[in-house]
Amino acid sequence: MKKLAIGIDIGGINTAFGLVDERGDVYAESVISTRKYPYKEDYPTYIEDLSRALRTMLHSVDFEYELVGIGIGAPNANYHRGTIETPANLWKFRPEVTDGDETTRIYPLADDLSKAFGGVKTLITNDANAATIGEMVYGNAKGMRDFVMITLGTGLGSGFVANGEMIYGHDGFAGEFGHVIVERGGRECGCGRRGCLEAYVSATGIKRTAFDLMAKMNTPSKLREIPFQDFDSAMISAAAAEGDPIALECFRYTGEMLGRALADVVTVTSPEAIFLFGGLAKAGKLIFEPTKWYMEENMLFAFKNKVKLLPSGIQSKNAAILGASALIWQSLQA
Amino acid sequence: MKKLAIGIDIGGINTAFGLVDERGDVYAESVISTRKYPYKEDYPTYIEDLSRALRTMLHSVDFEYELVGIGIGAPNANYHRGTIETPANLWKFRPEVTDGDETTRIYPLADDLSKAFGGVKTLITNDANAATIGEMVYGNAKGMRDFVMITLGTGLGSGFVANGEMIYGHDGFAGEFGHVIVERGGRECGCGRRGCLEAYVSATGIKRTAFDLMAKMNTPSKLREIPFQDFDSAMISAAAAEGDPIALECFRYTGEMLGRALADVVTVTSPEAIFLFGGLAKAGKLIFEPTKWYMEENMLFAFKNKVKLLPSGIQSKNAAILGASALIWQSLQA
Repeated sequence: MKKLAIGIDIGGINTAFGLVDERGDVYAESVISTRKYPYKEDYPTYIEDLSRALRTMLHSVDFEYELVGIGIGAPNANYHRGTIETPANLWKFRPEVTDGDETTRIYPLADDLSKAFGGVKTLITNDANAATIGEMVYGNAKGMRDFVMITLGTGLGSGFVANGEMIYGHDGFAGEFGHVIVERGGRECGCGRRGCLEAYVSATGIKRTAFDLMAKMNTPSKLREIPFQDFDSAMISAAAAEGDPIALECFRYTGEMLGRALADVVTVTSPEAIFLFGGLAKAGKLIFEPTKWYMEENMLFAFKNKVKLLPSGIQSKNAAILGASALIWQSLQA
Repeated sequence: MKKLAIGIDIGGINTAFGLVDERGDVYAESVISTRKYPYKEDYPTYIEDLSRALRTMLHSVDFEYELVGIGIGAPNANYHRGTIETPANLWKFRPEVTDGDETTRIYPLADDLSKAFGGVKTLITNDANAATIGEMVYGNAKGMRDFVMITLGTGLGSGFVANGEMIYGHDGFAGEFGHVIVERGGRECGCGRRGCLEAYVSATGIKRTAFDLMAKMNTPSKLREIPFQDFDSAMISAAAAEGDPIALECFRYTGEMLGRALADVVTVTSPEAIFLFGGLAKAGKLIFEPTKWYMEENMLFAFKNKVKLLPSGIQSKNAAILGASALIWQSLQA
């Protein structure tokens, strides 16, 4: 009988899910709102409604199959414990809650969904780790035993695989390259510190770079017409395509910061390849060329010209669902 | 029958070796000169003489045992290939060799020794990785699945274990934390770049800090009586013990640089503990206190006050031999 896995991608706005086979073909997919369940008290209803929507999807397929597991990608997910822990944008405390004792919120998502589906294997990890495993199962990292995945979205996520295994670390949170300090006392980061890589290299980071450069440079640029609050990183790509000098310098600088950081990443993990994934990676040569140049320029001699910098092989709009389902296929192989 | 492994520690001056059981008890040990074999052409004689000395050691034990393997710790060792590759201070080209084509020197040490001992399992890795495995087999990391080892000698070596396995990376050279850039454009490093962690945090690094501080500060200090070429890091420890303000500031600054770097190391690897080993680690509180303080001060929130900073549990003078032999015990457990 054909085997299928559910992949679930939990974002702050929507929860998308699909029914996927081990080759990455998607047989059904759907979505529910995450935003409709903003508070801690809404979590049980979210689980009920999600379970109902998953069941509807499972019944929509008109052939017989075996459901082998549920894989989930979500922010602040702890693989070891199967939980989502104090997520910034999910199931928050109500604003009127002022009880100082309550600082953590732990949601046992893997257990809750597994129970709803007869104890089926259910695994959860953060979205960047899910993308990493997706690359290994369906993408360009097939057969690689040591590689690094960098996902460039609103922030910078990452995951790394060594000896053929995903590295979760003792706490289940390893591979947070986005929060390595690249500029002592530099830009403020959402994590409360300063100078983290993701404050420079991410959709938000490159936007901040654009405003920094508009302050530093005198060159005319179309970007000067757009106020900060309406600005998004796609505008920089569009302007760069037309040769806008500030937009081009944005990409060079972003590549410099990323390339330097990747040289250090290589020194620590000695990967066969580094993959770039996500919105900023779609800028192609604009981001790959300076990143590669600065990575090699800063590389420890032993690693020079040995590590591949590659685009992700998963370009489907369902990348996040595929990544989540890959958790299951990967665990069955191991 | 009792099982014993040979551990060999190859340094630039001497090659020390011992016969060790799985508890870390040493039944015999000896040493030959490495320096007597300085050039590429001397390597075959080195292997012959080392094999002879090992045989003498094996025969010196007056009970029956099974030799289960040979573990080697050496600079520039490649675990995957069993080789020592272009070591800076071993079996060099003769100065008169000017043939520009010859830039690499590859010594298949594991194969050569294995052949000399009837094909016995022979494994090689760099000295810092050997110390890491030694900590796991005999020391304070017993039972830990995720930890980092920092060895503070002339340079800064390191190794890391994730999912209970040593991480060698694709090239066999992973875990080179000593060459992560901590100060862009900073101190010159032996690797040809600038600002590497080991240029600040190592016996050589703290000596450089002492001279930097003698230039920056006006405080009187006994250290000002010693010329650079006669200075060694033990003099800083001695002066600090007497309250010398420059010596104390040396340790605070070294701890600051190390603590910051370890916060980034935690972000990437999420270890249960970090161990400090080697000369500088013996300074105890002088180095542990500032390192811990700056590590926590710079730590990503999710990891704050969760990662232990501990001294190595292997204080024996035979630490390097134990670490090398641990390669074999570890491989038998796996």
